[in-house]
Parts: sequence; C-alpha cells; structure tokens
Amino acid sequence: MILPKLSDFYTDDIIKRALFEDINYIDVTADLLIGKDNAGTARIVAKENGVLSGINIAARVFNIVDSSVTTEICINDGQTLYKGDLIAVIGGSVASILKAERTALNILQHMSGISTYTKKCVDMVSGTGVSVTDTRKTLPGLRGLQKYAVLCGGGRNHRFNLSSAAMIKDNHIDACGSISRAIATLKENVGHMVTIEVEVRDLQELQEAIDAGADVIMLDNMDVSMMRKAVNIVAKRAKLEASGNITLDNIRAIAETGIDIISLGALTHSVTALDISLLWDNQ
Amino acid sequence: MILPKLSDFYTDDIIKRALFEDINYIDVTADLLIGKDNAGTARIVAKENGVLSGINIAARVFNIVDSSVTTEICINDGQTLYKGDLIAVIGGSVASILKAERTALNILQHMSGISTYTKKCVDMVSGTGVSVTDTRKTLPGLRGLQKYAVLCGGGRNHRFNLSSAAMIKDNHIDACGSISRAIATLKENVGHMVTIEVEVRDLQELQEAIDAGADVIMLDNMDVSMMRKAVNIVAKRAKLEASGNITLDNIRAIAETGIDIISLGALTHSVTALDISLLWDNQ
Amino acid sequence: MILPKLSDFYTDDIIKRALFEDINYIDVTADLLIGKDNAGTARIVAKENGVLSGINIAARVFNIVDSSVTTEICINDGQTLYKGDLIAVIGGSVASILKAERTALNILQHMSGISTYTKKCVDMVSGTGVSVTDTRKTLPGLRGLQKYAVLCGGGRNHRFNLSSAAMIKDNHIDACGSISRAIATLKENVGHMVTIEVEVRDLQELQEAIDAGADVIMLDNMDVSMMRKAVNIVAKRAKLEASGNITLDNIRAIAETGIDIISLGALTHSVTALDISLLWDNQ
Amino acid sequence: MILPKLSDFYTDDIIKRALFEDINYIDVTADLLIGKDNAGTARIVAKENGVLSGINIAARVFNIVDSSVTTEICINDGQTLYKGDLIAVIGGSVASILKAERTALNILQHMSGISTYTKKCVDMVSGTGVSVTDTRKTLPGLRGLQKYAVLCGGGRNHRFNLSSAAMIKDNHIDACGSISRAIATLKENVGHMVTIEVEVRDLQELQEAIDAGADVIMLDNMDVSMMRKAVNIVAKRAKLEASGNITLDNIRAIAETGIDIISLGALTHSVTALDISLLWDNQ
Amino acid sequence: MILPKLSDFYTDDIIKRALFEDINYIDVTADLLIGKDNAGTARIVAKENGVLSGINIAARVFNIVDSSVTTEICINDGQTLYKGDLIAVIGGSVASILKAERTALNILQHMSGISTYTKKCVDMVSGTGVSVTDTRKTLPGLRGLQKYAVLCGGGRNHRFNLSSAAMIKDNHIDACGSISRAIATLKENVGHMVTIEVEVRDLQELQEAIDAGADVIMLDNMDVSMMRKAVNIVAKRAKLEASGNITLDNIRAIAETGIDIISLGALTHSVTALDISLLWDNQ
Amino acid sequence: MILPKLSDFYTDDIIKRALFEDINYIDVTADLLIGKDNAGTARIVAKENGVLSGINIAARVFNIVDSSVTTEICINDGQTLYKGDLIAVIGGSVASILKAERTALNILQHMSGISTYTKKCVDMVSGTGVSVTDTRKTLPGLRGLQKYAVLCGGGRNHRFNLSSAAMIKDNHIDACGSISRAIATLKENVGHMVTIEVEVRDLQELQEAIDAGADVIMLDNMDVSMMRKAVNIVAKRAKLEASGNITLDNIRAIAETGIDIISLGALTHSVTALDISLLWDNQ
Repeated sequence: MILPKLSDFYTDDIIKRALFEDINYIDVTADLLIGKDNAGTARIVAKENGVLSGINIAARVFNIVDSSVTTEICINDGQTLYKGDLIAVIGGSVASILKAERTALNILQHMSGISTYTKKCVDMVSGTGVSVTDTRKTLPGLRGLQKYAVLCGGGRNHRFNLSSAAMIKDNHIDACGSISRAIATLKENVGHMVTIEVEVRDLQELQEAIDAGADVIMLDNMDVSMMRKAVNIVAKRAKLEASGNITLDNIRAIAETGIDIISLGALTHSVTALDISLLWDNQ
Repeated sequence: MILPKLSDFYTDDIIKRALFEDINYIDVTADLLIGKDNAGTARIVAKENGVLSGINIAARVFNIVDSSVTTEICINDGQTLYKGDLIAVIGGSVASILKAERTALNILQHMSGISTYTKKCVDMVSGTGVSVTDTRKTLPGLRGLQKYAVLCGGGRNHRFNLSSAAMIKDNHIDACGSISRAIATLKENVGHMVTIEVEVRDLQELQEAIDAGADVIMLDNMDVSMMRKAVNIVAKRAKLEASGNITLDNIRAIAETGIDIISLGALTHSVTALDISLLWDNQ
Repeated sequence: MILPKLSDFYTDDIIKRALFEDINYIDVTADLLIGKDNAGTARIVAKENGVLSGINIAARVFNIVDSSVTTEICINDGQTLYKGDLIAVIGGSVASILKAERTALNILQHMSGISTYTKKCVDMVSGTGVSVTDTRKTLPGLRGLQKYAVLCGGGRNHRFNLSSAAMIKDNHIDACGSISRAIATLKENVGHMVTIEVEVRDLQELQEAIDAGADVIMLDNMDVSMMRKAVNIVAKRAKLEASGNITLDNIRAIAETGIDIISLGALTHSVTALDISLLWDNQ
Repeated sequence: MILPKLSDFYTDDIIKRALFEDINYIDVTADLLIGKDNAGTARIVAKENGVLSGINIAARVFNIVDSSVTTEICINDGQTLYKGDLIAVIGGSVASILKAERTALNILQHMSGISTYTKKCVDMVSGTGVSVTDTRKTLPGLRGLQKYAVLCGGGRNHRFNLSSAAMIKDNHIDACGSISRAIATLKENVGHMVTIEVEVRDLQELQEAIDAGADVIMLDNMDVSMMRKAVNIVAKRAKLEASGNITLDNIRAIAETGIDIISLGALTHSVTALDISLLWDNQ
Repeated sequence: MILPKLSDFYTDDIIKRALFEDINYIDVTADLLIGKDNAGTARIVAKENGVLSGINIAARVFNIVDSSVTTEICINDGQTLYKGDLIAVIGGSVASILKAERTALNILQHMSGISTYTKKCVDMVSGTGVSVTDTRKTLPGLRGLQKYAVLCGGGRNHRFNLSSAAMIKDNHIDACGSISRAIATLKENVGHMVTIEVEVRDLQELQEAIDAGADVIMLDNMDVSMMRKAVNIVAKRAKLEASGNITLDNIRAIAETGIDIISLGALTHSVTALDISLLWDNQ
Repeated sequence: MILPKLSDFYTDDIIKRALFEDINYIDVTADLLIGKDNAGTARIVAKENGVLSGINIAARVFNIVDSSVTTEICINDGQTLYKGDLIAVIGGSVASILKAERTALNILQHMSGISTYTKKCVDMVSGTGVSVTDTRKTLPGLRGLQKYAVLCGGGRNHRFNLSSAAMIKDNHIDACGSISRAIATLKENVGHMVTIEVEVRDLQELQEAIDAGADVIMLDNMDVSMMRKAVNIVAKRAKLEASGNITLDNIRAIAETGIDIISLGALTHSVTALDISLLWDNQ
C-alpha cells in the first residue's frame, strides 16, 4: 500500500482549532501545579489491535503546543497495531505534554478507528478484487482527515466533493427526463476529468446507464442475486458500485458477485475510536 | 429538560467549513442537470427511533446555501423520534436543496446519534439521581456541537476545557508531592469559579482528597463494591464521579452505588450516526 | 450552455477580503463629503464587446457594503455583451455605492475578461467538437472564480486540483520506471472516480499510455501533423488533450486534427480585463 | 532602486489559501507514484526576458509544503531577467517539490508579469522625471502582492485604499457643490497625513483645484496639448497625474508634457504572466 | 463634524470574536433559566456625561446574537451624552439580550471612553485651530474602532499604519546619514500620495527638515518656548506636530504656540471606559 | 505566585492581526531608508515602576516579523519593574525591529498596565486573605491576554465566559420566580463542574441564596457595614464576592469585612498603559 502525505498546511488549522477548544488560554491544572522545568517522557501505546492512522498529526499537536517537545514515531500510518505496541515516544515539558495529550489522542483514536474498521472490511473482501471506499458521509471539517484514514486502512476514496466528480441520482434524472438525457447533458458540459456515475434501482435503468456511457454505476440497495445479474449485463463496460446497508456480515457475499466497488458510509459517519493511551515513564 | 440555544455565530463557521468541503465551487451534477426554476419539497424523516439533535443547524445549512429555501421544523431538539417521524419540511430550489442535503444530514445524524446514545444511558440510570456526562474526548472542531447534543439526550456537560475547571491527575500529584499539596496549591491560585476535581485510585487517596477539600472526586476504574465504600466514606462531602469502561451493561449497577456522576468518553468519541433521510415529495 | 451557480458562502470571503483591502475602516473621501441621505442611481455598462461573468458577485459586493443598496441585474452571466449594454442598475446611498464600486468592478472586469477570451477560443474551434479548457495556472485565491468564468465563456474546466484527478508527467514516470507502471500503480490505488491522464512526448509514449489504459492523454507541444497521427493511433480509446503554446492563431488548426480537448493556461494566467464602467444617472 | 520587504506574516495566508486550492488534502499522482525518499534538484529558469518579482514568496511556497525542501535564490526581486537565467535552485523531496511547483510558479509568473510590464513603462518615460504608478484596479486578495510587484518594476504605488488618502471625483464634487467646497471640507476634517487629490476634466476645474489647495490633481483623459497647458497653469503648486487610456504608444508623449505622475490600471488589472519554468536536473 | 461610517464587513469579525470569547457555545445561566418566549425591553443609558461612540456596533451585537432582537438608536455617535440619557432601546428575547449585553457594552464603553477623552482635549484647544490626533499606540485588533472613536470625539486620525504614510525617526536618519538624505531618498521612491513627516529634536534639525521639503515635522518633547520658535521658523512651510507628555494640563499652552497638530498616545493606549448601562424596563 | 503559560497557538493570531493593522504590506519608511544588512541592538526598558506582563508575546512579535531577530528576556512576567530596568534585549535587522516595535510595545504596555494596577489592588488587601479578580468587562478579542495579565499582577480570574460558570442576576431570578427556584433549576441541569454564583441586593436575598445552596454570593453595591453582616450570616457556607464601585480608596475597608473575593471591572476595562520603551544602543 502506498500512502499519500497530508501536508502541515492542511492539518495545522484543524489542530489549532482543536487546541483552542481544549485549552483556551491556560490549563488551570497543569500550568499551576507543574513547574516549567519539570520534564518527562511518555509513550503512546496501543490498548487494542488495529491499524494506525494520524500519528504524524498527533505528533504535530505536541509541537504546536510546545516546539521544544520531541516526538519519535515508532509505527507509521497504515501499519498494523497489536495491543501493547509502542507507537511513539514523546519527551519534554510535562505540562506541555499534558496540555497536548487529549487533542493528540482524540485525533489519533478517531483516525485509527476509521482505518481499523476499513481494514476489517478490506480483509473481508480479500482476493475478490473489490475496492472498499468511503462516501461523502463525513463529519464537518474532518473530511480530509477521515478520507486519509480510509486510505490507511487499505480502502480507497470516493469523490471528494460535488465538484470533483458527478453522481446522477433520482432528482437529477427526474429533472432531465431520463438517465440517458442526464448523461448526455453532462457529457456535453462537464470537463473531461469528471467521472460520471449513475445510481440505478433496477436492471432496466442499468441497461439505460450503460447504453448512455456511464463510467460508473451504483446499484442502490440491490440484493445479491440482482447484483450478479448486473455484473453479467455490464460485462466490464462500466464499473459497478454497491452501496447501502452493507455490513461486515454481508460484505463478502456482495464482493463475490463480481462488482468492483463497495462503498460504506459507516466508515466515516459511525466511527468507534481505537483505544490508544499515553503512558508516562516510571509510573 | 431545558435546552440551551447554540447561536448562529457559533455554528455558521462550522457549517461553512463543511460546505466548502462538500461543494467547493460548484455541484457538477445538480448545477448542470437541474434548472434554476425547478422547485420542490422534501421531508427530513427519521429512519429509526432516537432523540433529535441539531435540527436548527441542519435547517440553517439549507439557508446558507440558498437564503430562499424555506425550512419548517416539526420536531425540536431533545424530542423523541420514532421511525417514520416527519422532522422538517424543506422547500425551494431542488438544486439548492440537493447541494445542502449531505452537509445538513451529516450534522443532524451525528448529533442525533450522540443524543440518542446519551438518552439510552440516562434512561438506564433513571431514578438513581445520577447524572450522565460527556468528557473531553470529542472530535476536533466539534466540541460545542457534541456537548450540546449530549444535553439534548438528557445528559450534562463535564468541563468544557482545561481552563474552565481543574482536574488533578497522577502527573499533577507527582509534580506536587501529594494530593493535599496539589489541592492546596490550586486553592491558593485559581479563581473562585474554578471547581476542583481529583482522580483517585484507591480509598486512601479518596480520604486524602476529601480532607483536602476537593469539590469532586473521580473514581478511576474502581469496581462496584469499592465505589460503594467510597460513597460511604465521602458521605456527601464531595461529588463522586465514576469513569472508565462504562457501558450500557454495567451503568445501572454503577449508578446504584450512590455515586453522583457517570462520565463516558464513548458519548462523543465513538458515535453511531442516527439514520435520518431526506425524502422528496412525489417520488 | 448550462451555467452552475457559485454559492454566496463561497464568494463572500473573497469579497470581504477585497473590501478590507480597498476600504479598510473608512473612505476618507466619500464618508466625509457625501451625506448619509444622499441617494442616487448608477448603471453598470459595457464599454466594449465581450461575454459577461461575475455579475451576481459584483451585485453582492454592493449588498455586503450596504444591505440597503438595491441591485437589478439586466444581463446574466454567460450572455454576450455589446458596447453600451446596460448590465445592471444599482440604487441607494451614493457613498455606499462609491465604496463598493471599485471592488465590484475589479471582480466583474477580471471574470468577464476571462469569459470573453474563452469565448473567442471556443468560437475559433466551433464545429470541431473540441472542448476548450483551463489549467491549474490560476491566480492565488481566485481559482473557483476563474474556473467559473471559463464556464461562462463556453469553456470547460480541467481538474480542480491535485487531489481531484491524476496527471502523470515526466517525474512521475521517471520515479515509476515507465508509463505503464505508473498507470498500473494508480489504478491499483486511486479511487474509482479519479480520471487518469498521462502527458506524452512522442507516439511511442502515446502507444504505451493507451495500452496501459489511460483515460486521457496529453500531447505535449506536438505539431499538428503529429497530433493527427496521434488521433489515428488512439482511435477513440482515450481522450486526447493538446496543450502548450496554443493561441488564437493556431487553435483552429489544432482543433481540426481531431483531438478532443485544448487547454490554455492563458485563459486564467494572462487575463485582460474587460472594460466595464459604473455610470451615474444625470451626470 | 530600493525595494521594501513583504513580511511572511503578510504572504503566508495567501500562500496557504493557494495551496488549499491546488492540493486540497493529497496529490493523487505524486503522493502515490513517487517514494518519500525520492530526492532531486530543480531549477527555476526564465523562459523570456523580464524583471523578477516574488521569488522570496515562491521559495516560501516550497518551505510551507515541506520545511525540509531547500531553496537557493540566485536572482533577487527587481533584477533584470534574460531568457535562460537561473533564478533559483530547489532541492529535496521530489513529491514535495511537485506539489508546490504550480502554486509557486503561478505567484512568481504573475508578479514578474507585473514588474516586467511596469519596467517597460518606466523605461519609456526615462529621463522625464515622471513616476509610473498603479491604481486601485487590482485583483481581489492580491493588492499587496501586486503593488509590491509594481515597485519591483521601478514603479511607485498610488494610495493603498480609500482610507489612506483622499481622491475627489465627480460624485464627491456634486455632493459638496464645488471643488473648492469639497477640498475645504476635507481639510477641515481629515488627518494631516492624508494627501488630497482631485480629478479635473478641464482647465477651469484645474484652476479651482489649485486655488483650493489640492495636493495632487488628476487630469482625466485630457489630450497632450491640454496637459501641457495644465502643467503651465499649475507651475509646480501641485503634483499633476495623468490617467486614462495610457499605453506604451502614448506614454512618452504624455510624460514629456511635464506632468509628474502617470497611473495605469493595466499594470495590475490586465497582467500577462512572465514565462518562468521549473526544470528538473538530469532530464 | 462629519462622521464616516464603519461598514459591517469591518466590524462583524471583531464582534463575532468577542462573542466567542464571552459566550462560547451556550450561556449556562440565561439559557437554562429564561424561557425562549420570555420577551422584554431594555434601555441603554448613560451613567455619566461624555460623547457617544460605537452605538451602531453595539446594536449589531444584539442582532448577531439573535436577528429577531430589535434595536432603536436614540442618540448617534459623536453626540454629547448627559448622565441619564437614553441611548438606545433593545427589545426581544430576554435570554438573547442578556447574552449580547456584556459584549455590546464592552465595545460601547471603550469606544465612548475614547471619544469622551478626545472631546476633552479638543475642547481644551478650542479656537486655536489645532487638530488633536491619535497615534499608532492602539490595542491589538482594535485600531479601526479606536481611530473611529477618536473621530467621534472631534479628533482626527494620524496615519493608519506604516505603509500609508512615512515618519522619519532617529534610526532612519542614522541609517541615511542625515535628515536631508532621508527625505530625498523617500521623495525619490515613495508614491505621490505618501505624506512625509520627520521627527526633530532641536531647531537645527527643524531647519534641515524644512529645507529638505518635509510635509510635516514632529517636535519631539520640546518645551513651549522652543515650540514657539519652531512655529516662527517654519512659517507655514510645513505642518508642525507636537507629541510626547501631553496632558489636559499642558495641552492649551502647547496649542497656543501656533503648532498645527497635537498627537496623544493616551487617547487609545490608556482608555477609561465611559459608564453606560443596560437597564431593564419594570425592574 | 505560579504563572500559567499562554501558548503560541493562542497568541499568534492576535499578533498577526495587530501586525496587519500596523504594517499592512510594507513599511514605507524603514523599508526604504534602512538597508537590509543594517543590524543593531535595542533594549526594552521600563520607564516607570510596575509589574511586567506579556514579555514572551512581545518577544514573539519580533520573531514573527523576522525569524532572524534574537530576543533575550531579562525579566519575566509577574516580576516587579523599577524605572530603568532592562526587560529584554532585541538584536538583528534594524528595519525588522522597527517594524515590530510598535506592535510589541502596544501589547506589552497594555498587559503590564493591567498587571501593575492589579498588583496595587492586591497589595492594598495584603494579609486579609481576599482574592482580587477580574470580570467579563474585557476588550473585544483580548480577554485571554487581559486575564493572563491579571494573574501576572497577583490577581485571580473570575469565570472566563457565560458557559464556564453560572451567575444568577435579577433577570434570571425574575424569570424563575425566586432565587431558590433559580438555583434549584440550575442544580438540576448544569454539569457538576459549573460553579453557581448569585447576585444579591439585601440580606434577605442573601439568606435565600445560602439556603438554596449557592456556591458563591455576590454582594452588589453593599456598604461596608452590610457586608460585615453578610459575612456573619454566611459563616463560610458560601464564598462572598464584593463588586461595584471599588477603588484603591475603599478596597482595604471592603477586604477587612471578611468577604472572600473583590472583583473589579476597571482591571481590564480602564487600563492605563505602563510606560515601557525600546531604546537603541549607541544613540
């Protein structure tokens, strides 16, 4: 797996906003009880198995709070975590580390929660050639982080937003009169880098979408047997995406129908944080 | 239950950031396929039971995208939702409603997910007098929304951030030498509106915290029998908070020990979105 | 031509930043010389032929400076302008209109300059089926406005940014070893909505790109005869984009080779403002 | 020529906004195809003659994307460029350099386009003692950069905004009743650092403006012979500015009339980018 | 006195930042104790004599917190206030008014404190023709509001910032070698709208500054008799500004020397808030 | 006294906003008159006695303007200043130091003005055990800096904002019917970290507040003898705060009544800047 890099210019505003929320101007406990010269070392440790995501961002939280804090990363994003694994070592002012801790862990646990669940889905479809993707069902202000976390789990990203690719749904079709008119209208107007996906509800719509030249076709809440028929009809002329009510229980069966992509809103809208802690040395 | 109001000045920036993520400059599908005069009506509907949170923010998303869109709210924040309930009616430009839909639902489903789970916890401790609270384990940039959603579910809010109240933990105690010195130092330095909470690991520390005049004492991962002892020892001289590994399975037993507060990170760090949809009329 | 709509949430920050630059806190001339009750009417008028772009944004500038100013739009974005045409009527406080005037015209003239030049290019290739597109050579902070202005001129938009679509150039190929390995690596890793374009310098590279399944192929600075060969070789298996040193003088010849897309950096990096004025009534 | 320095605090926000536009969260091509250890060196080179502006900002773009990228500047702002000149050497992660390249060049080419055209105008009036200045016809969000680029080309800056100096035009005069009343009103009210300029349409208005004590008088669209008369009438009692329809063809004749300042909107509203490229070593 | 208007786009960000500070997400008192339907009327009333400044901004605070709150302004900026005067009437949701109250009054009291003290200085020099001005000694983020408040008190504004006008001080002179070289260098380089002021410490420097053509000369901490000599020497060839250690006690004597401008840092760096209250009807 | 630390992420935005106000894009004097290689050393020196606050922020201003400027801090926040004391040494580019000087001093003088006046109040109540606190009467955008400055003067901070603690006033009581109902309502709804303060006007209200379990009671404008009675009645069951019309003249008498807290709006709403200068070496 090749992982892209989130630049600091992208993540720093998110980090600072989180620090404003969590610290505001001072920490009435750490600032008053812990001397400025009090230094220590802490370890970020996995408390359960999973896949890591967001460690560079978490490390950066400590540096933004206090540029003299050192961070040594032992496990990289996308790597498997086992309970007890040492993820990173943080050293420096105890008060600074305490002030940054919660914000760093909140980000790391959320992103690793996403990559861990994504990896479970990816593993379930292993060998089928299916890609697991996210959706636009992300949390406000966190889309870039969440989509990157999906990549860390071995998933892929669906379109980033409404301007980067086209997805034709009921309302668009109703407004245009038909799937074929909708696709034709887009082809005459959008740029050549815009992929066109159409959501279809039955095999007749599927046929119309293929005939009109859709790049991708989403099978909306179809059962497995109908998906299989869709795969046969399409015969690789377009990519097929399954979406809607997909869980760890049915994802394998869906993947085995021969469709190309399975997208899950739950990857980003219903995240269970991965348990990761900061432990102080000598305690 | 009395619910506070989140002001627009607080939520508008969050909404605009989410819209930038989700739309960027144009919607290549809706803008190109749906005429500007094409108007319609859609209903926001509950697809499962729960507690509503964020409907005013969701409504505002539509207004920010297009000030001519009308929004009629039928169910208010904090009210119980039953599957099929009509939450709001949205009317106006179909393209505008489609552009706002995802952002509005992402916010509404996340916040209602929080209030629904909070309500389950609150119901579990019903009659015990215990309050259920959140923690600082929130998602970056969303703390205010998440804490408000906890209120919608009948929970209460723990301290907002590190400057609004004090919480003495291991590191602070180590740096000061003892719980009593830590509390004394704070009492001599913090403002009179700052509540002081201390985290204790055993009954000896508990005794020390009470003697030193702690306002609130957190029992860290204690079992139910030790909690009961703690309640007896404290005898209402301080508030007692239970925290750590609390689930729907053990929350009732913990509440019945007589402690005052149960705080759960999962309320905000591991949220399952509530299923809420936007349905178009006549489709 | 169907034009998308730029939402206010997208343009308002750009407008406010421009007003801060142009007004700062007060207008030492208008505020001191013109009474607050002094009202008037002004017309925005074309001083040369062209294609309009940005009139809704320009109108919004007046409303942001003073919400009591009225704006009546007579010609819409994308429409042809003839010298002397009345574009809009602005009414209200003379001081407010004067304070907004420069910012409104700066935006309107720049965007209309883009749409006018784009239209010239589009007209030059009329009947060939070629689309004229922009590039990423835009001015900092103005990409969305500039790309929208290209649409107003009948052009189409190339990819918005580095994350919305892939473009394989020399360095990427060098790093991967070959065009085919680069394309294969992307196909295994990017999401299914990401279109893959490859820049090729000769017909051998072209063949390799087609064999590897590129969606779009950019012919970099090829002459017209080689472009024609490329068109024959590709035989519609991929879209072909011509780019580099394209002017109004050679654009028709290039279009007639049968390629699909012509992209011009000059559309946005070297814009001549269209001459548009604000004229006061009774002067 | 002495050049001021644009501080990082002024340019960083512009750079970050441009990077958000151009990269968003990841680069799907470079991030996926180029290994993180892949390092290289690239040269920023002039592809045509001109005057350089913005090289420190361009260099900063690379550092903001990746602080480990090194930048060595060989030619400074304000210096003459000849086709083929080496402007700067950029070294480090190939992927980082590619991600920053477009944004860096967009800024550098635009600013150098301004300084190059300004220098042409300045050279045309060489020996006459006339200063060439910009206007408020700048692009939204880019005024500071554009005005600095004018300085790099040997021009000077007109007032920055509506609060930094006064410019009396038709509407102001109409509202006050006369030029003399307008000037008198300003003198009684504005601060002593505010220069007062008046726009006049004929020699009678010119006389009135001088009598009233204007600091600067703008001759609006006057022909050369009338400008000469104006110069004689004014006899150095005020500075004279020519503005409106000034091109490289008529600028020398205008300058020879003896006026003091020539201002051109085209310096900033109609910029042709200077051709500057980034070339990789060993390719 | 003619007062300029601060636009909403300029003040809204300041207001919102203040509201974030003062409310954050909810008001735990008003939101929980006062029903949403509870409406009332409150009056903003002067508790001491002074000059009003900032009432439109204060009114806007209420509207930003709750757009349904009504505000009726009875006294305008720049008008004299007598103890007990009714400044404005605020009506609507009691909770909303309470949430906005502190922020509105903080702004109004600070700005009116500035205008009141400015007016005292202006009255002290009444009849001398001297203008009273502010300096750059303003509070971070509040310069525009503070300078506007100075205007409300009948003062005038000194240069807004380091780019809007030139002020030559010791270091600049040392770097250039002499006052005359410093002035000559500026005249050759700055735009024609930039006023040049020089700070002089004795009459010899004064003479040099006049000979070199300074527009304004600042007499730095000179005594009254030397100021009188300076006035004679200058003989209206430049404007003379007195600055440094000026109080209500010595300002009249200084003004009577014949100098033109008196600038006081204390106008903005040491502001005593004017006592203004919000009183509820029927209490 | 233990002083908390304001993090850079909190102060940097305030500094940058101030620099934008004070410099905008260039310094027309320093940038044009002082060569880029011209280096020097300057000392920040106390011109009067007081207590220092904000020196780290002031030092950071120089670094943000030019990261090559060095700053050596000789006296720390919270320490006593005597006229002539060397506070810090600043070295590097003369032009950069001049550009940063005014912004650095504006912040330092304001904050030190607050800490100095706070210290006077604290010294006046020395030995009584009373704490001196600020209020919410702060300047827009500066609350964190002002409250920190109060700490530097030995004062303590009242609640930061309306969400961090509850303060029951007239309107809240009226809306609820009684003090006891107001307190009871809050106790049933707010989180356990929220301290509840009640403002009372007479001893009957005081009794009601104690009976209802208020944490803190504010005695609003009571005279000293009534305060003494209040102290006796309360008998340590709640903390007592005196507020309203408190000056250096009466603060001791009030403190000696036995109340616990004295809060003064004047600490932050009416600040006299402390006189601190930047002096250049060898001048």
